Amino acid sequence: MSFDAPTVIRTKRDGGRLSDAAIDWVIDAYTNGRIADEQMSALLMAVFLRGMDYGETARWTSAMVASGERMDFTDLRRGGTPLRTVDKHSTGGVGDKITLPLVSVVAACGGAVPQASGRGLGHTGGTLDKLESIAGFTGVMTNDQVRQQLCEIGAAIFAAGQLAPADAKLYALRDITATVESLPLIASSVMSKKIAEGAGALVLDVKVGSGALLRSESLCRELTETMIALGAEHGLPTCALLTDMNRPLGAAVGNALEVAEALEVLAGGGPPDVVELTVRLAREMLEIAGIDTRDPEQTLRDGTAMDRFRALIAAQGGDLSVPLPVGKYSETVTAARSGTMGDIDAMAVGLAVWRLGAGRSRPGELVQPGAGIRIHRRPGSPVAAGEPLFTLYTDTPERFERAMAELDAGFKVTDTPPVRRPLIIDRITP
Amino acid sequence: MSFDAPTVIRTKRDGGRLSDAAIDWVIDAYTNGRIADEQMSALLMAVFLRGMDYGETARWTSAMVASGERMDFTDLRRGGTPLRTVDKHSTGGVGDKITLPLVSVVAACGGAVPQASGRGLGHTGGTLDKLESIAGFTGVMTNDQVRQQLCEIGAAIFAAGQLAPADAKLYALRDITATVESLPLIASSVMSKKIAEGAGALVLDVKVGSGALLRSESLCRELTETMIALGAEHGLPTCALLTDMNRPLGAAVGNALEVAEALEVLAGGGPPDVVELTVRLAREMLEIAGIDTRDPEQTLRDGTAMDRFRALIAAQGGDLSVPLPVGKYSETVTAARSGTMGDIDAMAVGLAVWRLGAGRSRPGELVQPGAGIRIHRRPGSPVAAGEPLFTLYTDTPERFERAMAELDAGFKVTDTPPVRRPLIIDRITP
Repeated sequence: MSFDAPTVIRTKRDGGRLSDAAIDWVIDAYTNGRIADEQMSALLMAVFLRGMDYGETARWTSAMVASGERMDFTDLRRGGTPLRTVDKHSTGGVGDKITLPLVSVVAACGGAVPQASGRGLGHTGGTLDKLESIAGFTGVMTNDQVRQQLCEIGAAIFAAGQLAPADAKLYALRDITATVESLPLIASSVMSKKIAEGAGALVLDVKVGSGALLRSESLCRELTETMIALGAEHGLPTCALLTDMNRPLGAAVGNALEVAEALEVLAGGGPPDVVELTVRLAREMLEIAGIDTRDPEQTLRDGTAMDRFRALIAAQGGDLSVPLPVGKYSETVTAARSGTMGDIDAMAVGLAVWRLGAGRSRPGELVQPGAGIRIHRRPGSPVAAGEPLFTLYTDTPERFERAMAELDAGFKVTDTPPVRRPLIIDRITP
Repeated sequence: MSFDAPTVIRTKRDGGRLSDAAIDWVIDAYTNGRIADEQMSALLMAVFLRGMDYGETARWTSAMVASGERMDFTDLRRGGTPLRTVDKHSTGGVGDKITLPLVSVVAACGGAVPQASGRGLGHTGGTLDKLESIAGFTGVMTNDQVRQQLCEIGAAIFAAGQLAPADAKLYALRDITATVESLPLIASSVMSKKIAEGAGALVLDVKVGSGALLRSESLCRELTETMIALGAEHGLPTCALLTDMNRPLGAAVGNALEVAEALEVLAGGGPPDVVELTVRLAREMLEIAGIDTRDPEQTLRDGTAMDRFRALIAAQGGDLSVPLPVGKYSETVTAARSGTMGDIDAMAVGLAVWRLGAGRSRPGELVQPGAGIRIHRRPGSPVAAGEPLFTLYTDTPERFERAMAELDAGFKVTDTPPVRRPLIIDRITP
């Protein structure tokens, strides 16, 4: 069967269904440069506006898995016993540094986490960008290095590299063409990378709220069910938590600032929401992987999770004795009046941090490791006039103005405390 | 006001309206390479699926006019009297060689036709492609050459060049991204080129039917009204004929074959539908330009239109004494049974001729001047078994198979004559 790009685009544009053969052809031809970026972006916009049914999404996912290599850890052993691998994926939020303490906790509990990570684009940060604020850290690893580190330490956080290269190419294109927030495109992107990664099981942290990719809870539920079904179809047991992303997670947003907060959590402290979500996700991962050895919360108190984190960073070239970078310039936002800190909007904070230089507006752009925002008063805290509410950091002070404007629109000091919202909204299983 | 491409794309994607400033920015940034093709094609698909209202379409048109130079013929004189310029634009059909006799007729009646022409893409041919099958002919002219030729001969058919360069760039992009058949994009494309061209008045030939860009008559009427309003807004008096494009025009489709048919018409013969449409469009052009000197039909009978055509071709380097090219290979389709020739589908014939090599699948591709189809039996003609119905020509005989397949689906010999359809469906004035 021979295809051409305009005919395939036209089919989706007019609301038709893409055949399996058409999808296989599109993904292969795009990966190999036989479909131009401008044709693919027209198809992506047609998919965004016309949708894809589950069958199309499943085939699109399989085709992206098939575009590169697929790792396999089923034969991994430590001291003679099989090692169970399990991973977590978050659909992306503001201040979401959970991966850092989480992989360490799961490793300390006897699991192994092969985490293929991406870089941030837009208002959400990427795990690799955060870790690269640690001097010397690298996410570039060979498959053998990943396997060895999983055996020795129980976790590796590495650049996705040759896993689902079609997805990497598509993701960069979607970001500059406003075609990110599409359910079938998000589901296939997440699951193709995770299926290719080869973990034995997967826990999804699906964000709901202003700082999430999909804002409506019902769409988030549909996305979750689609991803769980895609996992099942490819032999990857998957379950999910739906979690709140109307507020930023924790009190630090920005690459190095988030690493510092992760270290606080690993030292037994840190903001309660970050601790809660870390422990809850760890429990889910251990359960789905069938590991029942230790209480994950205990590993944060007794330092064993911190040991794993330090070992992981050292194994990947990082030096935690070098102080983490901090933006050369800072500005502090103080309270204009006394009262109660109201809701803090995750999207506003995410955009402000992005404006400060912590994120990218184009793939390949350098990010400022020291840029970000420290939140001094969490929603619901009492506030006295003149008290500091936020500190903003950047190396490029001309960025303060636009960042301030984004942030200003995202919070208020009021007389009534904000509505309490549960952090964990729901648990969804197959 | 500062814009960025993803934000503008998102606005249209979500069904919003583009502001005047956003449209000006998009067209300027795209013309000057600050918006990438892959971003523009995503925006075009969003426009295709979400539409643009009249205000957006008008601003889009103005911005495209402003992207290049605008010609002006208001001071043109011949022998001391002002010369009235008027042009015609067809939305594109199969076998539509009307421009060739038409400009000659109007010139013979005392008008002047500055026709900026394009090349064909897809299943419809371009006027320049047709004329370039004449040895030596060129459409590349300076503005001064155009002015001089209008004064001396009364017609010039030239490459659009620097007129509305944004449209030229967009048109090539739309063709490969399946975003051609959009009402606001067609209207702005046609009118921006014609407004920049500087003619004093314009007659549109809007095609309706299987071989047309927009198939539904109601959409074609809406397109026509939009174009007439855009003309009025830019001081270009515009009226239109809605004409049938369910069947090919005339009996010859393909570059050199159509030039030969145009010469037959100019010699006082030729297929009645081509003659009828030529004369009718000429009357419309003369009327809207306020020229009331001669009967256009007479200029075909007395050879004065032919004289103008020969003069135009000679002035633009063409040599009509060199025989027109004919495809090296030919195949003839004969009637499998006796009966009446049924309808001949314009789109099927257009695609067959395209498959034979007369059209392009990419901008810049060479076309075969001698490729095409000669239609021996028009719809409604009696047919005897074994009689030739079509002859197909190409230089590359491996193309016959796919061309035959396209053509086969487009006609039938039956027992009942096809329904008679008027060639001219309606006349639409401001």
